[in-house]
Amino acid sequence: MAKRNLYLNVIPVEEALERYLSVIKERVAIKTETIPVIRSLGRVTVSAIYAKYNSPLYNSAAMDGIAVSAGKTTEASDVKPLVLHKSEYVIVDTGDPIHEPYDAVIMAENLIETADGEIQITEPAMSWQHIRPVGEDIVAHELILTSNHKIRPMDIGVLLSAGITEIEVYKQINVAIFATGTEIIEPDQNIEDGSIIESNSRMFEGLVTEQGAKAHRQGILKDDYALIRDKVKEACDKYDMVIVNAGSSAGTEDFTVHVLRELGEVFVHGVAIKPGKPVILAMVGNTPVVGLPGYPVSAYICYQNFVRPLINYLQNSLDSNKEIVEAYLSKRLVSSLKHKEYVRVKVGKVEDKIIATPLARGAGAAMSLVRADGFCVIEQNQEGIEAGEKVRVELCRSVDEIENTVVSIGSHDLILDVLADMIPNKFSKMHLSSSHVGSMAGLMALKRGEAHIAPIHLLDEETGSYNIAIIKKLFGNSGKHMALIKGVKRVQGFIVPKGNPKHITEISDVTKCRYVNRQVGAGTRVLFDYLLKKNGIASSEVNGYDKEIATHMAVAALVQSGSVDCGMGIESAARAMDLNFVPVGHEEYDFAIEEHNLALPHVKAFIEILKSAEFQEKVLQLGGYECTHCGEIVQVL
Amino acid sequence: MAKRNLYLNVIPVEEALERYLSVIKERVAIKTETIPVIRSLGRVTVSAIYAKYNSPLYNSAAMDGIAVSAGKTTEASDVKPLVLHKSEYVIVDTGDPIHEPYDAVIMAENLIETADGEIQITEPAMSWQHIRPVGEDIVAHELILTSNHKIRPMDIGVLLSAGITEIEVYKQINVAIFATGTEIIEPDQNIEDGSIIESNSRMFEGLVTEQGAKAHRQGILKDDYALIRDKVKEACDKYDMVIVNAGSSAGTEDFTVHVLRELGEVFVHGVAIKPGKPVILAMVGNTPVVGLPGYPVSAYICYQNFVRPLINYLQNSLDSNKEIVEAYLSKRLVSSLKHKEYVRVKVGKVEDKIIATPLARGAGAAMSLVRADGFCVIEQNQEGIEAGEKVRVELCRSVDEIENTVVSIGSHDLILDVLADMIPNKFSKMHLSSSHVGSMAGLMALKRGEAHIAPIHLLDEETGSYNIAIIKKLFGNSGKHMALIKGVKRVQGFIVPKGNPKHITEISDVTKCRYVNRQVGAGTRVLFDYLLKKNGIASSEVNGYDKEIATHMAVAALVQSGSVDCGMGIESAARAMDLNFVPVGHEEYDFAIEEHNLALPHVKAFIEILKSAEFQEKVLQLGGYECTHCGEIVQVL
Repeated sequence: MAKRNLYLNVIPVEEALERYLSVIKERVAIKTETIPVIRSLGRVTVSAIYAKYNSPLYNSAAMDGIAVSAGKTTEASDVKPLVLHKSEYVIVDTGDPIHEPYDAVIMAENLIETADGEIQITEPAMSWQHIRPVGEDIVAHELILTSNHKIRPMDIGVLLSAGITEIEVYKQINVAIFATGTEIIEPDQNIEDGSIIESNSRMFEGLVTEQGAKAHRQGILKDDYALIRDKVKEACDKYDMVIVNAGSSAGTEDFTVHVLRELGEVFVHGVAIKPGKPVILAMVGNTPVVGLPGYPVSAYICYQNFVRPLINYLQNSLDSNKEIVEAYLSKRLVSSLKHKEYVRVKVGKVEDKIIATPLARGAGAAMSLVRADGFCVIEQNQEGIEAGEKVRVELCRSVDEIENTVVSIGSHDLILDVLADMIPNKFSKMHLSSSHVGSMAGLMALKRGEAHIAPIHLLDEETGSYNIAIIKKLFGNSGKHMALIKGVKRVQGFIVPKGNPKHITEISDVTKCRYVNRQVGAGTRVLFDYLLKKNGIASSEVNGYDKEIATHMAVAALVQSGSVDCGMGIESAARAMDLNFVPVGHEEYDFAIEEHNLALPHVKAFIEILKSAEFQEKVLQLGGYECTHCGEIVQVL
Repeated sequence: MAKRNLYLNVIPVEEALERYLSVIKERVAIKTETIPVIRSLGRVTVSAIYAKYNSPLYNSAAMDGIAVSAGKTTEASDVKPLVLHKSEYVIVDTGDPIHEPYDAVIMAENLIETADGEIQITEPAMSWQHIRPVGEDIVAHELILTSNHKIRPMDIGVLLSAGITEIEVYKQINVAIFATGTEIIEPDQNIEDGSIIESNSRMFEGLVTEQGAKAHRQGILKDDYALIRDKVKEACDKYDMVIVNAGSSAGTEDFTVHVLRELGEVFVHGVAIKPGKPVILAMVGNTPVVGLPGYPVSAYICYQNFVRPLINYLQNSLDSNKEIVEAYLSKRLVSSLKHKEYVRVKVGKVEDKIIATPLARGAGAAMSLVRADGFCVIEQNQEGIEAGEKVRVELCRSVDEIENTVVSIGSHDLILDVLADMIPNKFSKMHLSSSHVGSMAGLMALKRGEAHIAPIHLLDEETGSYNIAIIKKLFGNSGKHMALIKGVKRVQGFIVPKGNPKHITEISDVTKCRYVNRQVGAGTRVLFDYLLKKNGIASSEVNGYDKEIATHMAVAALVQSGSVDCGMGIESAARAMDLNFVPVGHEEYDFAIEEHNLALPHVKAFIEILKSAEFQEKVLQLGGYECTHCGEIVQVL
């Protein structure tokens, strides 16, 4: 077999970073540059900046009016106004300089123009009245900005007023980014079997840019040792830092670590972090080179843990602190002592408690990065965190946004996407956050006070009714007042390839094909199990019964790809993927809720959207839905 | 006299903005554009984005290893390992596609290579094991981003993976910025009498850029009606919005409102806001034009209140909420019912209370914008706020930073600038914030628990000692344990022009010249009054006794400008401005502190800097200082 890098020497995150940064601090000089003040927004000062000029530059009028000699106005009074002749005053606008013999300004409002050029005043002017003395705002040689200060728009204004036109700041560093892999293609290239669309380098570009550094993407390199070596070497001579994406793992064509060993020195290969283990921290000459893993989530987590502090150090930039909240964990998290783990979580405020619900933990689950409201860290010395425990969550959304979010946990349907889009569009500060765990798990979350609503579609075999019976059963003794927000009637059935090649028409046909199942607790799974039982079919007769998938769309995707022949799901999913659909029956998809939460402004917004003609039109277009009772409230308990 | 715009029609802030926005909403269409996803960082989506492709694109290996048919491995066991021949497996790296007949992956770690091309396994593979099914991460037609979503680096990654390469976003608007005024010069031009350095437009450039719009500075226009009219007209045809800076007031050459009336329609001229009253909100054709006042603070406040919401509307951008804290006001603020007032404040945390201390309130005090930690709003219907009352402060620094700041209120000395620069430089998260109110006012603030330290230099006439006696007198009955952090010995005297043309050598000489005084409560004022009394000189004999200025440097600036002949101050200020200095005597400049605050980490940092050789070297270079006891602690009470 081809050579693999099986033996990563795994070390703790903090130790890895410290080891690497100490080498960098020793070998890499922090660069500065002098730039025009007018281009300095967001840059960081190297040393203290002192004013060069006074501001104002001279004694100046603080009001529109006339400048006079105060000493010559002492006689003026209401009874005996004083007349000033042309030679005894000068008209000034705010900001005009005041020269000797003048030493006071009288406001325009207090002047009476009499004959041509003659002005009457009715009270004496005080010396220095309405005059801004030289340097009132800024005194030359006064400190304007300290060192290590990030320059803001108002700083630019004051620097210029104080006569500073150039300023020394830390240099923006130039970061080269390589994507590697023979199977990797650009997003606009033709997809072939085995193709993977390159996207990590574009995420890195964004992250580097957000840090105020300059990203230089170098395109995609094939898995060719000599090519990678030569290109990386070239980049190390030209840029301040190099990122090599993927090829950092133990696969047969993972050359990065070998290349870096040949070109320079590898200080760390393998860190106790999940996702992200196979990170490489190296130096080629005096240029730091970081090898990041290929899975998007691993790539992101490793960037944040290793590249971010490195760029901050090299630019001396001041990282803004992430907002951190204390939240209650809704689900037990088990982790290994082998690594520090970063778990993406949804965060919502329910019943005055902030609740964190873990998302998919796989390193490949890039959508979990997009859907995450924050990250919860399980330290390396923790084996896990129990449900209900308090955890610290580093937020990627604002607390304000989280407090205005309807938290939905339960069954999945495409109409949730429509709702999630329409709510913030109509109610600018409000959001819908939904986790797809199936109907039963949704009701349990509702019972624990972790969600505002639970979308469910659960048939009661005895009464033949949907949803109401199960809520009564589950919440009957809880003392909670429960309601149902009516959702849609929808069609369930078998999603099969175009043309239905396996001729699936009834439940018994699934034993003839490769099936994909939904997870335990999903309403669709309940229905499927009910149908099997009713027709006397054992689960062992179904090829693929154990293959569980979490959403209707994922079932449709597997059918479309040809990996399976059939799966149960809703008609809209089959339609979206242009597949055939064999209806089994109608069901009701509604939202269980505690009655007092109906009064929340974001829940009200949710209901208003449900009732709107625009929403219902969009849903009917998806196919397989009826909207007759959308948004109606049914009291249950 | 020339024409003035004396009659501004002043209306409340909210009404002004509403009136203007309602016109804009009626007449200006919000623009969108389609751009490449790879250039979309920070832009805002117009509509919901759904995935085009699945990710992964096919069933793929989730591990490095071999792909097998699970059904053919059922016999494998520890006791009887199964040997797989070359034709029965294929080597796969993570991400490689899995094709029929293979339906499972066995990890590299669990393989034993025997003969060439033969592999032993010791347990059966489960169907689908270590395979990422097609669409596991992203399912085609699934919602990726809602509308009104600000695009982040991870979003770009997922969009590309999902086959999206172009995206519709709200257009960045183009904002033209004019500076007007015959007296206005560019920062690099020669300064002449009456010159004002143009800086507001550069501040606007920064503010516009921070909002994600594009700033187009048009340079400086002379006060020429026809010129301003033609240039503004031209810009209105070319850009999405125009800002005209200054000329919005009632001065003789304030043409802006007349120009805008000729070119289009003026909806608001004059708003009940302080600073900022003479703002103009207008339209020329369908282009919004805002006239902003010339004083930097007015310009800034009006930008935030009128331009910011306007740009947000035109770009549909999501403004991040400012951080707001509740603070106790340290000083009574009086305001008029005529306007809503924005007061710049320093904010510090002392004794577990957040304290807000008002800064200079003048519209021209641009440095107060730089020095501000936040803004406190006095609503139009409030006549003021009492000291000790709770106020809401909109922060411009982070709470974290504020909690690590030493709050100093008291006398001014140049060494405070050196300290303010060195502390964050040596202790990255720590800061010094100082307000200059004079020694006595500093001690009173300390007594009220509004400061950590009070820099003072107060002579006790009876004992001839500095600082200790006055602390004993003021805090003797307070029950507080007080200490003194020793600062510097410094020389006080008369600051006079180069060559000392008025031959000032002793206190009685000040009656012969134009003097500038320090404010009541300043240590230097105490000293001056003491000297007058001792020498039997009446204050009325001093020309300029009532002209009060707040810092040594401001005194030096007035002397340098020739506006006054003499003022009392410290030697370092005279030296910084290259002036002559007539010493009067030594005094001790120390820091009063409550003893328990000595334990605070930021106060410890402050003391460490005071004791450092680097600090003392810098101070000695300023001139007029002795550092013998710098940083020593003296217990007082």
